[in-house]
Amino acid sequence: MAERLDQEINEQALLVHGKRKGKIEIIGKVAIKDSKDLALYYTPGVGAVSKAISENEDLSYEYTSRANTVVIISDGTRVLEMGHLGPEAEMPILEGKSLLFKKFGGVDAMPIVVSSKDKDDIIKFAKMIKPSVAAIAIEDIESPKVFYITRKLSEEIGLPVFHDDREGTSMVVRAALINSLKVIGKDPKKIKVVINGAGAAGHGISEILSDSGIKQIIVCDKKGAIYKGREQDMGQFKNEIANRTNPSMMKGALDDMVKGADVLIGVSAKGLFNKELIHSMARDPIVFALANPSPEIEYEEALAAGAAIVATGRSDRPNQVNNYIAFPGFFRGLLSCRASKITKSMIMAGSDAIASSINKKELSKDHIIPKYDRQKDYINLAYRVAISVSEAAVKEGVAQLNLSRNEMKAEVRKMLIHYNKIEKQVEKLNKKA
Amino acid sequence: MAERLDQEINEQALLVHGKRKGKIEIIGKVAIKDSKDLALYYTPGVGAVSKAISENEDLSYEYTSRANTVVIISDGTRVLEMGHLGPEAEMPILEGKSLLFKKFGGVDAMPIVVSSKDKDDIIKFAKMIKPSVAAIAIEDIESPKVFYITRKLSEEIGLPVFHDDREGTSMVVRAALINSLKVIGKDPKKIKVVINGAGAAGHGISEILSDSGIKQIIVCDKKGAIYKGREQDMGQFKNEIANRTNPSMMKGALDDMVKGADVLIGVSAKGLFNKELIHSMARDPIVFALANPSPEIEYEEALAAGAAIVATGRSDRPNQVNNYIAFPGFFRGLLSCRASKITKSMIMAGSDAIASSINKKELSKDHIIPKYDRQKDYINLAYRVAISVSEAAVKEGVAQLNLSRNEMKAEVRKMLIHYNKIEKQVEKLNKKA
Repeated sequence: MAERLDQEINEQALLVHGKRKGKIEIIGKVAIKDSKDLALYYTPGVGAVSKAISENEDLSYEYTSRANTVVIISDGTRVLEMGHLGPEAEMPILEGKSLLFKKFGGVDAMPIVVSSKDKDDIIKFAKMIKPSVAAIAIEDIESPKVFYITRKLSEEIGLPVFHDDREGTSMVVRAALINSLKVIGKDPKKIKVVINGAGAAGHGISEILSDSGIKQIIVCDKKGAIYKGREQDMGQFKNEIANRTNPSMMKGALDDMVKGADVLIGVSAKGLFNKELIHSMARDPIVFALANPSPEIEYEEALAAGAAIVATGRSDRPNQVNNYIAFPGFFRGLLSCRASKITKSMIMAGSDAIASSINKKELSKDHIIPKYDRQKDYINLAYRVAISVSEAAVKEGVAQLNLSRNEMKAEVRKMLIHYNKIEKQVEKLNKKA
Repeated sequence: MAERLDQEINEQALLVHGKRKGKIEIIGKVAIKDSKDLALYYTPGVGAVSKAISENEDLSYEYTSRANTVVIISDGTRVLEMGHLGPEAEMPILEGKSLLFKKFGGVDAMPIVVSSKDKDDIIKFAKMIKPSVAAIAIEDIESPKVFYITRKLSEEIGLPVFHDDREGTSMVVRAALINSLKVIGKDPKKIKVVINGAGAAGHGISEILSDSGIKQIIVCDKKGAIYKGREQDMGQFKNEIANRTNPSMMKGALDDMVKGADVLIGVSAKGLFNKELIHSMARDPIVFALANPSPEIEYEEALAAGAAIVATGRSDRPNQVNNYIAFPGFFRGLLSCRASKITKSMIMAGSDAIASSINKKELSKDHIIPKYDRQKDYINLAYRVAISVSEAAVKEGVAQLNLSRNEMKAEVRKMLIHYNKIEKQVEKLNKKA
């Protein structure tokens, strides 16, 4: 049944992607009506604009679209959880991201897939593109290569660098967990969390939960629990995980670690969780099966196995833990205050804003994270996230624009509302066509 | 007077560029109305699209926006005729190009300025971006570096590579010259042409005019006439010029070369032509002063000096020889037939279409090249150019799509009309704001 539904979705997805050949296009912010417009927006007028920018580079944020433009870069080595399908195959995902960047964040995102898988090539590429953009988003690059790329870029490029699989996922998972614990009434400080998957997402989630005061965290990979001193299949980034989690240095397979755990988070692969695993957890187990597009255990199956709260990455089930809840608003905030980099407290601020966007009365086992049902809610959510993130940036001294609280709110609102109007026109034109 | 006007244009240009911070934005071709749309355009549906492309890379032209997307790359080393102002200063020009690409060609053009001026870095960058685009446009890179970059890319990348300063300018200048000769009634085979400037434009124009059967062509640079065997300040690309022009190996300064010439084409710098130069030419001199934004001689001055026909790059004078007449329609044609590369005959076809777009009755000394006055004319021009270019591509066997003549016409028309509707909406929204 679920498979037949998937089959239908897949067929329809191919159809709608082919209809207009892709999902995004580039248009003018301004209309050119006559030769006077042409003289202002193109030659000779544009010469004065170029000259002004050459005398003060910062003016590229005032006179070109740079201030609102980010680039999404991928090499297609980790296409969803399907692995290395190549750059061309990654493009539909990046175009989808670009669409969501604009719809929920008012952000212009250029999707770019690159033909080289070499980490230093990708770093060089991002550095070369710097003068064209205000921030860099790294997407669907395999671990551990992606850690090296994002860290080196963050340190050296002088622009915010965001790795959605890590920062975005951490932000949303933490928000979903905070709300889940509220619903079932457990104290975050006393819980035990097991994370299956030690890629970018597992690394990020273990860090943000640890920074949030959760002590008992165990991260597992294919070889079982990661602990300080493990010798097999480690490396710099797994050592970082070992250093901040698993204080009792537990050893063993996933099954052993999950026994008595309050929370099980999968950022691994399809079908890796089962009924027995959930049975072995503490009372009111929380299960986030986030492998995408196919979860570690299906939503219904996990509930049937006794999970109190289940979340997956699927948009056709309750509790969709998906990064599009976070990245558009997060970028809206960092672009509107022109942040020079991304700090931990900005990620935390984004996560807090997502968690608190559902009020106590609305919270339930099937509603721990904002849903897509109402478009208005999304704009409101992005607004909350953006304001929260920009305030954190100001507090940390990384905001380069000196806007008052009210100016910032007006700016964010304007950018979020703009696309709503455009999208209505797109819909009308498509209906006519 | 002219300077005061320029001053006004400059001030207004800064104002309108700052109003919405730049000139272009990225929007969805499709609207996302609910979670069902999200499941189709994003996860889980997008997984099926990625999988399909991974099994057949060519499907990236069907399921993503790639087929209609080009990248415009510049390093800002030749910003108009102002020289090396840096990548940030080049962006307003690239955004202007992107706007015109869409308005007159229905083409989505990503403007990208890069931080490295190294020729091999730029080649590598273009090769890395290949899976994201259907063609490459190289813009405002200094000579002779730009020759090396465009040739190497054309040979190695497996995508059409267009250098507007060379191919675009050649296409338009040739069309303007054909029409000028018709107006004053001279035989192309008997004229003498002097070109001042041996950069990309001079190189390209001398080649296309030579290929068109004009025998007497002399190209000058700062050292005077270029001839076979000249030793000072040559190099590979000037040697190519020497080999195909100046058959009598004339030596001397620009002034000497221009004596008795029928046509003087400047692709050099502001103020390099004067009254005396024009006085020394043959009867009914044709003067194209194309330095941009400020011509070698002002339009009015050249007329006063006795020129029969004058063209400049300025949109506020008659006979604007500007590449936006050519590149949008040219790209529309090559994208719609999915050309694998650009051939000489495609450039010629584009040029012929531009020249013949003005009928005999409409041709005059002040109307040798299509004007911007009527938007409809421009869509019609781009249509003519696109069809002509795609037919040339089919004839040469470089068109990868096997469309009938009627299918091609329908496709081109659809793409050209689409943006007209969008732009009207943009205008409405801007008026309300």
